[in-house]
Amino acid sequence: MKRIGLLTSGGDCQALNATMRGVVKGLANNVDELEVYGFMNGYKGLIYGDYRMLSAKDFSGILTRGGTILGTSRQPFKLMRVPDDKGLDKVEAMKQTYYKLRLDCLVILGGNGTQKTANLLREEGLNVLHLPKTIDNDIYGTDMTFGFYSAVNIATEAIDCIHTTASSHNRVFIVEVMGHKVGWLTLYAGIAGGADIILIPEIPYDINQVVEAINTRVARGSGFTILAVAEGAVSKEIAALPKKEQKKKMEEIAKKYPSISYKISEDIEQQTGMEIRVTVPGHTQRGGSPCPYDRVLSTRIGSEAAQLIMDEQYGYMVGIINGKIKKVPLAECAGKLKSVSPNSQEVMAAKRMGISFGD
Amino acid sequence: MKRIGLLTSGGDCQALNATMRGVVKGLANNVDELEVYGFMNGYKGLIYGDYRMLSAKDFSGILTRGGTILGTSRQPFKLMRVPDDKGLDKVEAMKQTYYKLRLDCLVILGGNGTQKTANLLREEGLNVLHLPKTIDNDIYGTDMTFGFYSAVNIATEAIDCIHTTASSHNRVFIVEVMGHKVGWLTLYAGIAGGADIILIPEIPYDINQVVEAINTRVARGSGFTILAVAEGAVSKEIAALPKKEQKKKMEEIAKKYPSISYKISEDIEQQTGMEIRVTVPGHTQRGGSPCPYDRVLSTRIGSEAAQLIMDEQYGYMVGIINGKIKKVPLAECAGKLKSVSPNSQEVMAAKRMGISFGD
Amino acid sequence: MKRIGLLTSGGDCQALNATMRGVVKGLANNVDELEVYGFMNGYKGLIYGDYRMLSAKDFSGILTRGGTILGTSRQPFKLMRVPDDKGLDKVEAMKQTYYKLRLDCLVILGGNGTQKTANLLREEGLNVLHLPKTIDNDIYGTDMTFGFYSAVNIATEAIDCIHTTASSHNRVFIVEVMGHKVGWLTLYAGIAGGADIILIPEIPYDINQVVEAINTRVARGSGFTILAVAEGAVSKEIAALPKKEQKKKMEEIAKKYPSISYKISEDIEQQTGMEIRVTVPGHTQRGGSPCPYDRVLSTRIGSEAAQLIMDEQYGYMVGIINGKIKKVPLAECAGKLKSVSPNSQEVMAAKRMGISFGD
Amino acid sequence: MKRIGLLTSGGDCQALNATMRGVVKGLANNVDELEVYGFMNGYKGLIYGDYRMLSAKDFSGILTRGGTILGTSRQPFKLMRVPDDKGLDKVEAMKQTYYKLRLDCLVILGGNGTQKTANLLREEGLNVLHLPKTIDNDIYGTDMTFGFYSAVNIATEAIDCIHTTASSHNRVFIVEVMGHKVGWLTLYAGIAGGADIILIPEIPYDINQVVEAINTRVARGSGFTILAVAEGAVSKEIAALPKKEQKKKMEEIAKKYPSISYKISEDIEQQTGMEIRVTVPGHTQRGGSPCPYDRVLSTRIGSEAAQLIMDEQYGYMVGIINGKIKKVPLAECAGKLKSVSPNSQEVMAAKRMGISFGD
Repeated sequence: MKRIGLLTSGGDCQALNATMRGVVKGLANNVDELEVYGFMNGYKGLIYGDYRMLSAKDFSGILTRGGTILGTSRQPFKLMRVPDDKGLDKVEAMKQTYYKLRLDCLVILGGNGTQKTANLLREEGLNVLHLPKTIDNDIYGTDMTFGFYSAVNIATEAIDCIHTTASSHNRVFIVEVMGHKVGWLTLYAGIAGGADIILIPEIPYDINQVVEAINTRVARGSGFTILAVAEGAVSKEIAALPKKEQKKKMEEIAKKYPSISYKISEDIEQQTGMEIRVTVPGHTQRGGSPCPYDRVLSTRIGSEAAQLIMDEQYGYMVGIINGKIKKVPLAECAGKLKSVSPNSQEVMAAKRMGISFGD
Repeated sequence: MKRIGLLTSGGDCQALNATMRGVVKGLANNVDELEVYGFMNGYKGLIYGDYRMLSAKDFSGILTRGGTILGTSRQPFKLMRVPDDKGLDKVEAMKQTYYKLRLDCLVILGGNGTQKTANLLREEGLNVLHLPKTIDNDIYGTDMTFGFYSAVNIATEAIDCIHTTASSHNRVFIVEVMGHKVGWLTLYAGIAGGADIILIPEIPYDINQVVEAINTRVARGSGFTILAVAEGAVSKEIAALPKKEQKKKMEEIAKKYPSISYKISEDIEQQTGMEIRVTVPGHTQRGGSPCPYDRVLSTRIGSEAAQLIMDEQYGYMVGIINGKIKKVPLAECAGKLKSVSPNSQEVMAAKRMGISFGD
Repeated sequence: MKRIGLLTSGGDCQALNATMRGVVKGLANNVDELEVYGFMNGYKGLIYGDYRMLSAKDFSGILTRGGTILGTSRQPFKLMRVPDDKGLDKVEAMKQTYYKLRLDCLVILGGNGTQKTANLLREEGLNVLHLPKTIDNDIYGTDMTFGFYSAVNIATEAIDCIHTTASSHNRVFIVEVMGHKVGWLTLYAGIAGGADIILIPEIPYDINQVVEAINTRVARGSGFTILAVAEGAVSKEIAALPKKEQKKKMEEIAKKYPSISYKISEDIEQQTGMEIRVTVPGHTQRGGSPCPYDRVLSTRIGSEAAQLIMDEQYGYMVGIINGKIKKVPLAECAGKLKSVSPNSQEVMAAKRMGISFGD
Repeated sequence: MKRIGLLTSGGDCQALNATMRGVVKGLANNVDELEVYGFMNGYKGLIYGDYRMLSAKDFSGILTRGGTILGTSRQPFKLMRVPDDKGLDKVEAMKQTYYKLRLDCLVILGGNGTQKTANLLREEGLNVLHLPKTIDNDIYGTDMTFGFYSAVNIATEAIDCIHTTASSHNRVFIVEVMGHKVGWLTLYAGIAGGADIILIPEIPYDINQVVEAINTRVARGSGFTILAVAEGAVSKEIAALPKKEQKKKMEEIAKKYPSISYKISEDIEQQTGMEIRVTVPGHTQRGGSPCPYDRVLSTRIGSEAAQLIMDEQYGYMVGIINGKIKKVPLAECAGKLKSVSPNSQEVMAAKRMGISFGD
């Protein structure tokens, strides 16, 4: 007999349902009795005891379904120790829910912030497992997060579509790709889509280099240029500032432009006089059915979590390292960020092929 | 023996290549000899004699390829009678190219503006056929234009992706859909994607009605609302103004916001305090491989154009009416716009199902 | 207050759920009270009183979902008047269920066979509406059935995939397309996929003509040939036989080969010695999410059915004619088949482009 | 100045063009002069000196295109040392072509057989690099081959489509997946598609276990069962035979059935009396545009090959191990097969979730 709690927290992504299915099917086939408590809307459901009992049937047919059957919400880690408006101690509330339901384990699907809170609950003595979900692929301790390749597919498809239209006109096109503070999604979609210029947070750009790359293409007779720009892209100028001024500058930009691409567009237009078109796939990158890569990864991670619960092994993130599913102590990975190294093979391979990073 | 010229003009779309393949394969299989002159970048190629000879091989494998192998450019109709910077009379230049190459017919693929110029060339005595291309479906005299359903597919996919992510959060999402001055693309993608609110130019919106529709959904327990907003959407307030002031107002908006969706987003946020996310698929809607619907339509239109050339029937647009490919005299359709009727079956069906048009 | 029954019957297809959503949302927004009885597994549910009450929530999120939430089964029309194994009179049983639940109308989604039974129930005095579902597009009285274009997309995608692999090798590829006794699906997918040879039931093939078409391609330097073959394709030889012998011959083929493509493959191999590869997408053509075309069509048909129910207009199929949703008396269309005319514009357009029909 | 030869050999797959683009763009951006000789139709082109000079332009726009611009053919390794019909020594002929064109390196894209010949040419003193292409993922010395995930996507999509139709009926569905003698493709597509039973060559099946798994599902109320069956699946009975008798048995099956799935279908039908439907996506699994995963992998492998050529490092396969592109001596990997371990994490994860392997 096992009693487990499930919750999905933070920005949603593909394969959340697929992963939960993996956990529940993995357990249901191997334990005598199973009780599954699904907490609604992330940690909120755990704090306020908002849950529903789930049966195997709830997990049938959801392998391919995007979103999360539990809903999700963002609950910033730094506010976890701060009481809510009614003075409720959130951490205590979560512990109470956990103990009241006599859970064997709490399985938490989420990204970096979610992981920190998961680790906090571990420190508070709860049995937790964290399953690394995010389209950003920025979780330390795992080579890959589920959601990433599904998002790569959508962003790449956007660049593909732009490609056929771009090659018919003589224009500069910017496709803005998600990825939060790291460049994984933009780098992979940029390479996969055949972008000419890729701008990511880890390699601050010099607008003059960007313009030069465009001009070089024009000079060579390529009428169009496609830029894959990370939502977190930052100019060398701003990156060189002290943190505080950096933040101020970026707030100024945020006030003036819906997103960084519109600023870069304006800058390029001013220097080249060329027509620029901006495409913002936005939240579509989090949606749709998970791709087969993610479904296999999710199923393997979920199924391994089931095994860990049967073995009563708690306090881990279940990640993938060198192709093998591994348990990684939360104490080791929580609070760390995995970003793109400017000297990584991927960046070097791209540069070798003539892709400019604006540096 | 036939000598034909081909050109693609205006904003590009899917199925241009498929259509040209239809024309050329249709002729190549039925005439003794065929010479095909492909004019580069729309009317520009015809004006300045920029063309290349094309063989059947150039049309092999392009049925599925987006964009146009000839390139395209926008050449406003109203400037056709205006000499270029070097004083060249464009219309005369086009006629000279035509006569010099001893063309039997000029096959012109394009939208409304392109059609007007095609009609002008007809009036000037050239043999022309116009094939109705546009993702906007706004060409008078044909029930359908090729490119439309391919764009519907892409816009719908964007709404689909937003749907899975929206249903996990409690937010308002705006997906901005192309379509120029008409609402066909937004209406069809909105219905196909299951949008809750659809805003199109033909039905000016009242922001209060939009907000009310959102609030009604919240009151009923639907945490999210998805709006499909046409790039040409206009408020009742502005629509009621005299043309001149209308234009002024819209220029003000264009200066302040990258596009109308960002304004609507701001308006909704101010009235509801809800989080809004804007997605702009933009030019992706013109790209990618044409969908099977468009490929069949294009092949039929192209193949019929080949027949008309063999029959020496010129001066027509080749459209589809009630499921049959028909030749429509350019004199009858040029210069007219086909827009969505607010009382059309499609709008009525959508309203019956509870979709709000903000009116 | 309205009480309606819903059932889906026959081979399943895409957009069944989308259509039912159209009916229910269309009613729910416009009548005071609504009771929806969903009969399970087609007429079987109606016969044996197997139903479940459905609420608006059951129809939320199913616009994009393939299959049918009600299940389906084939109940041959000719057995409807034959009692079941326990001596039950099926028609009486259906009438009893209908009256017991005091239904205002029975909304029946299905193909040709289903339609005949719907008409029978109408003759028996029940209020029925029939909504034309089938990937075969063979229903008389409507220009289009929902499911058709979704299936065209899948079959075309199969041909597309074969195209890239075929062009790398020198082989003959056969893609077997569904469509029952008519060639709509094969004709459209064949044109959309750029097949070189299209074999459909309405145009019996001569294997020598097929081989000649392949040889002609080889002679012209095209190393590969792609055939789109309808599952119902038939040779001239067999088509010329009297019905009874025809049936016998076809049973012999069915015993020897899994399907007609394998026979054609063998015949071509024997005559040419070329390598042939057969692809059978099979039931995938009925599955997956409905395409946007079908979703719009389904929504319009479903929403119109809702209007007819409000107007108490019964005894119709709701079809689409010349782009307009129309009610068509069941008495006029039941029992008739819509097949491809060998002289249709589509066939002529294809032939003009050099596509062989093996005739 | 570099002179390189390119050839693609064996069954085609996605991302061949993408990989060649990686090699050529990687070199073109970094060496003074580059001459690229593209050999037509695999080793055949090298043997008979059939090549064409390629420029950078030939590699523009092919990142997303399936197939291979060079064509391919199968040239069995074991016949390489056997003279052709005209007595030509093939190995000598290849060497002559190589030396005559004064190539710096021959870049060979292909699978296991291709690799053996590449190694042979290395032993003969030629500079070669082998790039691991195959949808089967059976190449020893690399974790992944390009083509694999694109094929997984297509096979999974087939299972997805079957899923929606299966859940509407009560039937057994078999989807036959490619993969040659190994089960990677079936295993991954089976997990990703949510198959209930997965049959792969590495785990011979017992038909009674297969039937029992189906019956268990029926007993639990699941009306349908989906089998993902590898084209190389083999029964325990046959697997237990000595090699020679094994081969004989399998030839008998091949004579009687188009493929193994039809035999399994017949066996299940005989034991259960249930309706079975077989789907054979076949060569579609080799076609279509490469998925983003493959495009990134291909670009990285191709770009690394360019670096190796610049560094004059020859005699390697360029593979990926633990996420890093690595050069692997051909001497170490040629002639070995990478198959699925029955105790691999993937199989264990699937079994834990209740998927049957029929063992």
